[in-house]
Amino acid sequence: MTAYPDSLARLVESLKQLPGVGSKTAERLAFHLVNLSDDEAMGLARAIRDVKQNLTHCSRCFNFTENDPCPICSDAQRDQSVVCVVETPKDLMAFEKAASFKGVYHCLNGHIAPLEGIEPDDLTIAPLIKRAELGTIKEVILATSPDLEGEGTAVYLRDVLHDVAVRKKIRLTRIARGVPAGAEIENVSSAILTDALSGRQAFDGGR
Amino acid sequence: MTAYPDSLARLVESLKQLPGVGSKTAERLAFHLVNLSDDEAMGLARAIRDVKQNLTHCSRCFNFTENDPCPICSDAQRDQSVVCVVETPKDLMAFEKAASFKGVYHCLNGHIAPLEGIEPDDLTIAPLIKRAELGTIKEVILATSPDLEGEGTAVYLRDVLHDVAVRKKIRLTRIARGVPAGAEIENVSSAILTDALSGRQAFDGGR
Repeated sequence: MTAYPDSLARLVESLKQLPGVGSKTAERLAFHLVNLSDDEAMGLARAIRDVKQNLTHCSRCFNFTENDPCPICSDAQRDQSVVCVVETPKDLMAFEKAASFKGVYHCLNGHIAPLEGIEPDDLTIAPLIKRAELGTIKEVILATSPDLEGEGTAVYLRDVLHDVAVRKKIRLTRIARGVPAGAEIENVSSAILTDALSGRQAFDGGR
Repeated sequence: MTAYPDSLARLVESLKQLPGVGSKTAERLAFHLVNLSDDEAMGLARAIRDVKQNLTHCSRCFNFTENDPCPICSDAQRDQSVVCVVETPKDLMAFEKAASFKGVYHCLNGHIAPLEGIEPDDLTIAPLIKRAELGTIKEVILATSPDLEGEGTAVYLRDVLHDVAVRKKIRLTRIARGVPAGAEIENVSSAILTDALSGRQAFDGGR
């Protein structure tokens, strides 16, 4: 059997390392790249190189950034005393898209998952405690995902932040769990309904 | 709303141009690339560059190759008098994987599809006729896909190759249509069964 030319085979192998890309998809992507104009294909190659060369973590919040501190941390318009703790820069972007949060962030860059070998020390928890020690933070919102690892990470953070929170008078909060906006109750899982009931709030129109 | 850093946004945009890659997938791939080691990420960037710099079409069969003529066309072990006409280099590789063909190929680099704006002149049909005119070919196997465009292309090729085939005594053949190996008859579509019946062959054990 005649194999693909070397450079094509190497491209297929490289593409196969991407998440969710198997042999078939890698071949399809490779052929697509081969058929692209030089400009378009080299644009992707350049974009990968640029991202590796230019992108770094913000030394304050650990979000990806090209300038340190990142635009959010250096934005005087934002409330630097409210810190929303998220698992990943993607989660941070989700909050930014919602555009309802005017504080700053702290990216853990993952969640605690001992079974996957992710221990607290692998996350940016120590720098978060250091930030809390500075005494300028009034509230830390734990916004890890409402799943097993996210809840576990939130509980762990609550414990390790407890002392500094008491000393520095920092309010520790957790994002609300409940029925998702736009959902139909009949289609919502029992776990969500249980959350929604146990988290019910006074509804008196502010009176 | 704060957007992604420039280089990250550019990478997401580049990735979105790939087939089957939407916004969500592009973001997922971009974050994966950012988290890869420099070596791995640059490996992909280099692979894309190499493929664009090194890969060309074989001047004889129009398969992708790094050397012209390609390894198949320059292989003295292969029967250069039998030419299997395929739509794409991927189809060629499928035949090579089957390892049951010892002749050479001709890649049309597509199929005739007027509705998509693909006319015969967009394919490598003129060079195929030229190859036939050389007088060294004994058989041309039309191995375009058994779908609407592939059949149409095969019929078109049969017509344009008719004259030279008669003059140069070239046998024109079409790959067999029928039930796919390993299939269970009860699960096979009517179209396939109709093909299988109309293409039935003598089964007398060679007696």
